Amino acid sequence: MSQTAIGTAPETAVSERDMANAIRALAMDAVQKANSGHPGMPMGMADVATVLFNRFIAIDPSNPSWPDRDRFVLSAGHGSMLQYALHYLLGYADMPIEQLQSFRQLGSRTAGHPEYGHALGIETTTGPLGQGISTAVGMALAERMLAARHGDDLVDHHTYVIAGDGCLQEGISHEAIDLAGHLMLDRLILFWDDNSISIDGPTSLSTSMNQPARFEAAGWHVQSIDGHDAEAIAEAIENARQSDRPSLIACKTLIGKGAPNLQGSEKTHGAPLGDAEIAATRENIGWASAPFDVPADILDAWRGIASRGQAKRRIWEQRLAGSPQREVFEAATAGELPDAVFEALNAFRKEHVEKATKVATRKASEMALGAINTATDLTVGGSADLTHSNLTITKGMNRVAPSDYAGSYIHYGIREHGMAAAMNGIALHGGFVPYGGTFLCFADYARGAMRLSALMGQRVIYVMTHDSIGLGEDGPTHQPVEHLAMLRATPNLNLFRPADIIETAECWELALKSKDRPSVLVLSRQNLPMLRHAHSDENRSARGAYVLRETDGPRAATLIATGSEVEIAVAAAEKLQAEHGLATAVVSMPCWELFEEQDADYRKSVLGSAPRVAVEAAARLGWDRWIGDNGAFVGMTGFGASAPAPDLYRHFNITPEAVADAARRLII
Amino acid sequence: MSQTAIGTAPETAVSERDMANAIRALAMDAVQKANSGHPGMPMGMADVATVLFNRFIAIDPSNPSWPDRDRFVLSAGHGSMLQYALHYLLGYADMPIEQLQSFRQLGSRTAGHPEYGHALGIETTTGPLGQGISTAVGMALAERMLAARHGDDLVDHHTYVIAGDGCLQEGISHEAIDLAGHLMLDRLILFWDDNSISIDGPTSLSTSMNQPARFEAAGWHVQSIDGHDAEAIAEAIENARQSDRPSLIACKTLIGKGAPNLQGSEKTHGAPLGDAEIAATRENIGWASAPFDVPADILDAWRGIASRGQAKRRIWEQRLAGSPQREVFEAATAGELPDAVFEALNAFRKEHVEKATKVATRKASEMALGAINTATDLTVGGSADLTHSNLTITKGMNRVAPSDYAGSYIHYGIREHGMAAAMNGIALHGGFVPYGGTFLCFADYARGAMRLSALMGQRVIYVMTHDSIGLGEDGPTHQPVEHLAMLRATPNLNLFRPADIIETAECWELALKSKDRPSVLVLSRQNLPMLRHAHSDENRSARGAYVLRETDGPRAATLIATGSEVEIAVAAAEKLQAEHGLATAVVSMPCWELFEEQDADYRKSVLGSAPRVAVEAAARLGWDRWIGDNGAFVGMTGFGASAPAPDLYRHFNITPEAVADAARRLII
Repeated sequence: MSQTAIGTAPETAVSERDMANAIRALAMDAVQKANSGHPGMPMGMADVATVLFNRFIAIDPSNPSWPDRDRFVLSAGHGSMLQYALHYLLGYADMPIEQLQSFRQLGSRTAGHPEYGHALGIETTTGPLGQGISTAVGMALAERMLAARHGDDLVDHHTYVIAGDGCLQEGISHEAIDLAGHLMLDRLILFWDDNSISIDGPTSLSTSMNQPARFEAAGWHVQSIDGHDAEAIAEAIENARQSDRPSLIACKTLIGKGAPNLQGSEKTHGAPLGDAEIAATRENIGWASAPFDVPADILDAWRGIASRGQAKRRIWEQRLAGSPQREVFEAATAGELPDAVFEALNAFRKEHVEKATKVATRKASEMALGAINTATDLTVGGSADLTHSNLTITKGMNRVAPSDYAGSYIHYGIREHGMAAAMNGIALHGGFVPYGGTFLCFADYARGAMRLSALMGQRVIYVMTHDSIGLGEDGPTHQPVEHLAMLRATPNLNLFRPADIIETAECWELALKSKDRPSVLVLSRQNLPMLRHAHSDENRSARGAYVLRETDGPRAATLIATGSEVEIAVAAAEKLQAEHGLATAVVSMPCWELFEEQDADYRKSVLGSAPRVAVEAAARLGWDRWIGDNGAFVGMTGFGASAPAPDLYRHFNITPEAVADAARRLII
Repeated sequence: MSQTAIGTAPETAVSERDMANAIRALAMDAVQKANSGHPGMPMGMADVATVLFNRFIAIDPSNPSWPDRDRFVLSAGHGSMLQYALHYLLGYADMPIEQLQSFRQLGSRTAGHPEYGHALGIETTTGPLGQGISTAVGMALAERMLAARHGDDLVDHHTYVIAGDGCLQEGISHEAIDLAGHLMLDRLILFWDDNSISIDGPTSLSTSMNQPARFEAAGWHVQSIDGHDAEAIAEAIENARQSDRPSLIACKTLIGKGAPNLQGSEKTHGAPLGDAEIAATRENIGWASAPFDVPADILDAWRGIASRGQAKRRIWEQRLAGSPQREVFEAATAGELPDAVFEALNAFRKEHVEKATKVATRKASEMALGAINTATDLTVGGSADLTHSNLTITKGMNRVAPSDYAGSYIHYGIREHGMAAAMNGIALHGGFVPYGGTFLCFADYARGAMRLSALMGQRVIYVMTHDSIGLGEDGPTHQPVEHLAMLRATPNLNLFRPADIIETAECWELALKSKDRPSVLVLSRQNLPMLRHAHSDENRSARGAYVLRETDGPRAATLIATGSEVEIAVAAAEKLQAEHGLATAVVSMPCWELFEEQDADYRKSVLGSAPRVAVEAAARLGWDRWIGDNGAFVGMTGFGASAPAPDLYRHFNITPEAVADAARRLII
């Protein structure tokens, strides 16, 4: 099978116009059947998608996770029927026509928005606007970084994105395009579906942005074309592939193109066209087939793309087979960390138990990272411009720079949301384990992408320091209160709040081993004492909570704490024992989610039956689960304040005395 | 007292250079004394601030809330010592030198970042980067809207903003500048502290953005100047004031300007200069005074600004006194809603109890808004491009358009974060009560600014629809799970989740009356039945939770629910009574925060002592507080799915049957 020259339409019996009309018909019919969905975008971008797939994209539906495939990201995720239509037409095994017929129905793979993991070939979950383009920046960066390590022979692909006005209005797009322009991510090609329509009506209701000029300001290569002119589309893609910068192709389109009475109107955006308009569209575009029926010659033309992709993949596999890099490349793309990482962390814990090292957990994290990054080069670090506060860089890490991707540390800039989305893209691309830092309070800025880490089950590690009023003088805008609850309420995400250097190393181990769930490491600015008495090979944080200090006899009280407040709980327990003769256990609970997964007996043995007091310098919400009806909570009841940390702990009455008093009130 | 011609420095015995050096000295000395803070930015922007205040700004420290004052926003809030130095120099009564000497200490007004309400003249809380500029867009918009209503005679002021690289890298800045450019907010003037330094080092580590070109693409008037050249600064401000568009003045500055060995380095950004460098700076800039001592002639020059401002204010007050608009203007700026609003809402409730109106609560909200917006013109609505989904526009509302500010509805565009910040700015400016809509899930995008609504105690009303899996086919990316917990954990914010049209009207009343706290109205996409049996003038939602269905005798169980799940709880109670003879009460709990504020007796009377089951189509986190040790929860345990809503409720087992079963398991 010969490979088609890029940019020239392969000779087939049907035109690309017919091929595009197949997308239009499937999209309008599926939305109509579901009585829900967005036909306008797939119909408007059908021509661009057809030329892109027919002439350029290298994917193999028979092997959808081939590492050197091109990545296709539908950032305008509401146009999901574009993606499902493509997948059916290309012949993905899990996307028979029945899936399109059950669009948006329970249990189907054809969810309202493309969901990573629901169907083969969906590279990332989209729908929340701006996420796709920002995730794609991470993919395009990972591609260049992987190529820098393993050579263009093994890694040489593009990331193509379709984005709409919504994606480009969202703030995250600014962070993404600035970072991509700066790093000169030349394998990133973004199609802007410039249809001048958003949900409220014409985009002129709310924006006057000159998008091409904006992208030029960010260092992008920019072209503007008629998005319905196949040759113009092909030429623009050719040019974009030649550019040494990321490329914007502004495609002037008609939303709902083909629908004679509704095209160009916001009415085609988010609702079925209706039977009459669908009939009129069929006539208008010359589509005689019944709903969900694609003529054999047109289907053949589409399936030909798949065959050509398969051929490309086979050629690549031959290169891989002959490459001296093969083993290390395969280990990287499998994402398997070497045992040396975990051996190093175990040795690290042993060393620091013996030394009784007293450091802030952010410092402990830096030290643990030193061990990790020495034992593997799969980790890719970074920070949203707080490198020396988050302590995310370790010795010997070089920065990733424009056109120089050999490094492993990314200065993400003051772009928490963009960083989180880029890390999603890096993790999805494969080859690396990304971690990135900011202050915990600015999880607020990153929330949209952090939720997608969880929804997609990606191993993204958030290093979030300055985790409470303990950060001190910066004051309430920088002091998290509700953020622990926010993250604990998020499904499929582990929040770790370690109490000392040992737990920090344990939590790092758990985060690295958590291949299908993001982790948030929540770390102190202030120094914390080492609380363990002896080393054990067991990772005690792995059960989420454990008894750090047990009593000799029956417990009079149990104190539960996380992170920097475990020290306070230990002091309170000592006080209760020494001054009041009350046998008081201390439970450290670095990870609620893992504790919830333990069996009831274990949970009961940890929590005990004595009155319980929880202490955490944060909102109470959620703690009643662990302290029960007769428990007490010592923590924050409002926002923080600006002052040195010790003053704040006293001011907000989060002290050993307050905890001991609360316990005594429960016992008496 | 004669008014100085704008743009010309008043004749004083001291130079503006000396005046600026007073800022430099106070900033470096205060940071040194606190051993914490950011001297670099105040020292770098001292010249710009001096020219701005000396020649242009109209403020009156003796009457800091004069409605027609210029607004000054320090978006780069870490440079708070710039603001505190200005306030001391200008003679704000609450900012004596002792406050600067207790910078960043407990109880002082000089918090780490400027905190609204902590000191007179602080127009908004800043620190989280990008918020200041985005809030300022709301202020500048409110100014034009107020002027459109009351005339330029009463409303004619500018909003000046100082922003750093961090502010301009954050995504929210994109949303803000696009909106400001689109609406042609010509009274907005933004100084960019272009010092090429961020925390990690030179900005070239992470950005290659051509900021002037970027602002031009957004429709701004753009100038680039030497930020240490007083005449250039003055000329640029003059030009900006003449422009019919918002203005960027890119000010090339040296961070830490004046510190001979450290200026231009990131080392001046976030740490004290140290005694040796401070001594060298004193020598370098010719500042012989002791720490916190400002020579009398220099202080006089600064205090002269205050006097001139006072004179301007008095002239304005004369205009107001003679204005036929006076009464209505004063009512608007006081933010007092007319009684007619609440009378209309009461009549609305009575009408719909009698009609037993069954609508989605988002529709109920639209209907209630119809009554509200008819009774007052202080409300300003909007949506982040989901107007016809959030149902935020009512009959007769005109849109706010470029250079046309008479309307009361804002198409915020696909900019949730920018919308939230703009609403903060509108509320802070005064004259309006802003509300704005998006899907609840996209509270994620708006979080940063929503937190500031709460921290600043602003009456901003978020209309967040599509509040659960009840939104159906759009799927898990659009279905909130953890968002209720996230918002409930946020201090000083009321989250309302009404169960029917009556509660919706009640919650709107409570939100409008909540003058010092933002409210989030969480509303269903799907229809919900009217649950009340009779009208009462009492607002039953005002206590946060109440017994919707009481039992005749002792309760066998209590079911607690919010929003769309109250209907399910009622059905479950009926089932338990009818099929099992179990007397079951139903509690509707539209607002946890208000319920928590009730006395213990009331809370106990509502919750009862029978076993409790809570039902809410969201995460459990937080519910244990209300269901207790022996309670049960029916809700979500992970992310949602894409399907019609009724299918999803069945799939996730959030049904009357599941609730009844859970209750029976507790009773038996």
